[in-house]
Amino acid sequence: MLEISLVQDRNAGPVYRQIAGQIRSAIEVQRLALGERLPTIRELSERLGVNRDTVALAYDELARDGLVEATVGRGTFITAGAGARAFEPQLSPLIERLLVLERARPRFGSADAAVALHSVVPDPRLYPAAAFRKTLNRELQKGGAELLLYGEPQGLLRLRRAVAEHLKGVDLVVTPDELVLCHGASQGISLALRLFATPGDVVALEEPTYNHVLAACSGLGLETTAIPMREDGLDLGVLERTLARPEVKLLYTIPSFHNPLGTTTSLAHRQALLAVAARCGKPVVEDAYEQDLRIDGRPVAPLAALDTTGGVVHLASFSKSLFPGVRVGAMAARGRLVGALLALKQSSDLSDAMPLQAGLAGFLESGDYAKHLARLRRVMRGRRDALLEALAQYLPHGARFNRPEGGYQVWVELPDAIDTSELLPDAVAAGVLFAPGAQFNHDRRPSQCLRLSYAMADEAELREGAAVLGEVVTRHGRADGRRAQRVSV
Amino acid sequence: MLEISLVQDRNAGPVYRQIAGQIRSAIEVQRLALGERLPTIRELSERLGVNRDTVALAYDELARDGLVEATVGRGTFITAGAGARAFEPQLSPLIERLLVLERARPRFGSADAAVALHSVVPDPRLYPAAAFRKTLNRELQKGGAELLLYGEPQGLLRLRRAVAEHLKGVDLVVTPDELVLCHGASQGISLALRLFATPGDVVALEEPTYNHVLAACSGLGLETTAIPMREDGLDLGVLERTLARPEVKLLYTIPSFHNPLGTTTSLAHRQALLAVAARCGKPVVEDAYEQDLRIDGRPVAPLAALDTTGGVVHLASFSKSLFPGVRVGAMAARGRLVGALLALKQSSDLSDAMPLQAGLAGFLESGDYAKHLARLRRVMRGRRDALLEALAQYLPHGARFNRPEGGYQVWVELPDAIDTSELLPDAVAAGVLFAPGAQFNHDRRPSQCLRLSYAMADEAELREGAAVLGEVVTRHGRADGRRAQRVSV
Repeated sequence: MLEISLVQDRNAGPVYRQIAGQIRSAIEVQRLALGERLPTIRELSERLGVNRDTVALAYDELARDGLVEATVGRGTFITAGAGARAFEPQLSPLIERLLVLERARPRFGSADAAVALHSVVPDPRLYPAAAFRKTLNRELQKGGAELLLYGEPQGLLRLRRAVAEHLKGVDLVVTPDELVLCHGASQGISLALRLFATPGDVVALEEPTYNHVLAACSGLGLETTAIPMREDGLDLGVLERTLARPEVKLLYTIPSFHNPLGTTTSLAHRQALLAVAARCGKPVVEDAYEQDLRIDGRPVAPLAALDTTGGVVHLASFSKSLFPGVRVGAMAARGRLVGALLALKQSSDLSDAMPLQAGLAGFLESGDYAKHLARLRRVMRGRRDALLEALAQYLPHGARFNRPEGGYQVWVELPDAIDTSELLPDAVAAGVLFAPGAQFNHDRRPSQCLRLSYAMADEAELREGAAVLGEVVTRHGRADGRRAQRVSV
Repeated sequence: MLEISLVQDRNAGPVYRQIAGQIRSAIEVQRLALGERLPTIRELSERLGVNRDTVALAYDELARDGLVEATVGRGTFITAGAGARAFEPQLSPLIERLLVLERARPRFGSADAAVALHSVVPDPRLYPAAAFRKTLNRELQKGGAELLLYGEPQGLLRLRRAVAEHLKGVDLVVTPDELVLCHGASQGISLALRLFATPGDVVALEEPTYNHVLAACSGLGLETTAIPMREDGLDLGVLERTLARPEVKLLYTIPSFHNPLGTTTSLAHRQALLAVAARCGKPVVEDAYEQDLRIDGRPVAPLAALDTTGGVVHLASFSKSLFPGVRVGAMAARGRLVGALLALKQSSDLSDAMPLQAGLAGFLESGDYAKHLARLRRVMRGRRDALLEALAQYLPHGARFNRPEGGYQVWVELPDAIDTSELLPDAVAAGVLFAPGAQFNHDRRPSQCLRLSYAMADEAELREGAAVLGEVVTRHGRADGRRAQRVSV
């Protein structure tokens, strides 16, 4: 409350000057802060028992001096003085948790010369960049300004048609109406999680699993519970006990070319998984982000194709099979899940970029995508074989790794109880990058496993990388082997 | 539990056939469901007191018949029978709420011939589509495959530099490091809300306010509390009482070219607002989505420029000033808010599309954006004036509307107690679309106001639309005037 005391004394000067002076002092000592509102002329005149004109004169003087500003109908505000005091805005506790997780991510520093076996981003040397550019340019020319409006929230119908057509190739029959396009499968993950779970709820995730989904859960305030991975996919017994808990709202799973394991589950396992989910009445989010990248082996139908329950959301992506920059993913679902995903997508960011959707539609329709895929799979077969051969040659005796039928990743278990996060700095220094297993564990506990990828490195680089890795592991094994620290597999 | 009873009788046939037969029957009557796991050979043999080979023989026979499948290390699963039963997956309660909101949105049906005064999407007839296409094509040619990788999560540095340069023009000085780019300002709204508020928290929003932010809050499980709008912006007294409540985590406000009101707050009001927020220690999200669209009047610095507290997130957009299809927005913030926004953006969808970011950077750098803006503002001045003139001419006596200094929207208050949502179908039939006021109220309560926009219609169309609207309103006023139903202003 503004304190003003008036002196009825000729020497004190006119009353309006006394009022103005005392307000001026209050501003100077910051008892009145920038932006504060003064009492109305009527209020102050009544409080001080003076004529309204007297207060008005005082306010006019302050306004002339630029200390206050009167706004019709709103009152008079302090416009001078030290700005409002800085304060630390309180972040949502979910964000604080996310920042902790963020700080724990491995940093590779400036390791440009090192062989990149850590990343599952496809190799830019293989992008059909010029062909895509031409398609995009043609589509923009054809589509004109209309293509620069907000898109249909569900995604360009033409692209949904092309994606539906494409999904037939992996045995998934959906109509364009059952597809909601999104901003990469990564956005699809966030939306699918939010579709079923609200902060405080629990999501069943494989362990190890894709590290980004752990971050997404954290950012959304979702707890996770780990379903251990066995030879042929997640443990169905643990799954059943887990999904039976009411607070567990969904399962997120990667049945084909698992990240980080590289494994693919059998038809029988998929059917068993769907049966468990149905018995528990819980939906399944199937991340099929690398499904176009089969190198060999017999294709296995995705969960969404086998499903008879209507409880599966299938996430498809072009980020790994074409390039991430196209930023198009697709969510396939049935029944009211479609409308719900659509409303959620729209409430998140209104719509995606139609120019890129039209470019991708053109690229799919022309057969350019199929051509690119055939080449990419051929190159990846060579790379996978080169990496596996080199690992067999260079890794110390007792190291184990699998043979993926597609995708980009190979999972390696080291023979000695080495924490691969501790191994990483030496490997970087020696010239090879890998993804330590800990980052795929829910609790980031140490792991003696690591994920290698043949996405980014060519055959010669893969051999070099494997040789360097073998050396570093062997050296560490000798040094640390007898410490026999306990780390998880 | 699988029930098997064995008969030790020669006529009953060999034991393994009895086991296989009973399992077969259980599958047929669906006591054993598709995907279920059979007991292990060891378990069942112990339970039945038979030799393991006997059980193995039974399982072999079932496998030959395609009824079960054995997977090494995982057990034997039922692979035949009716699929898992359909169930209704339970959606998050937030999504259910979002779907209710979604159903309440006005539908304009097939009103292609009607004058579009309802939409604040910029007019495609004014898009510099060809120039942008050429810039994009050039950038893609120059950038090649590297531009098709995942982008820097914070957004292309080059574009952040260009945006920082551009923001100087609206008196906002930020470094490129203080900008996080996003997928349109609409994504910026979601991220900024999530930065400070977690489900169950309360967000202070103006009333009326941008309807999408109401949907975004709903989808995020955030409650909203209404700060009434006065002549010169939101009610600062109500704001102070509201932000003082601990469960209220932030204020979202549109100080310039308010949506839906079209009003712009004064410098004094902005400083007062910041002072209130600072006293309460609560952050402010400033949506400046139309700030490039000033037509006349004296520019007022954005809150982020006046702020001395570090508690403002400023959202800029190119969707209204260029076109929505570019899907680029920018979030400007200070201190640790930047890293937090970045982590949140990354956890949501990894990164944005670099091709479009590079295209926009080129467009800003070349001066093409500034040129487009100058033209757009000139055209909008003509449209605004035409609309206001036509409203004065055609709206019945007593209707009130304001004169926006920029942006696209004009707020109209009708003289009679007409619920403008009920007016809409007649207006659509008569050939004009508008946005009824109810959709901008937190509780969607009826309103006798409506939002008109001069974004999409040219001067002739605006005059025609205003004439039709005047007719429809006059007709309704006569019919409904004496009902004197209470609707909010």
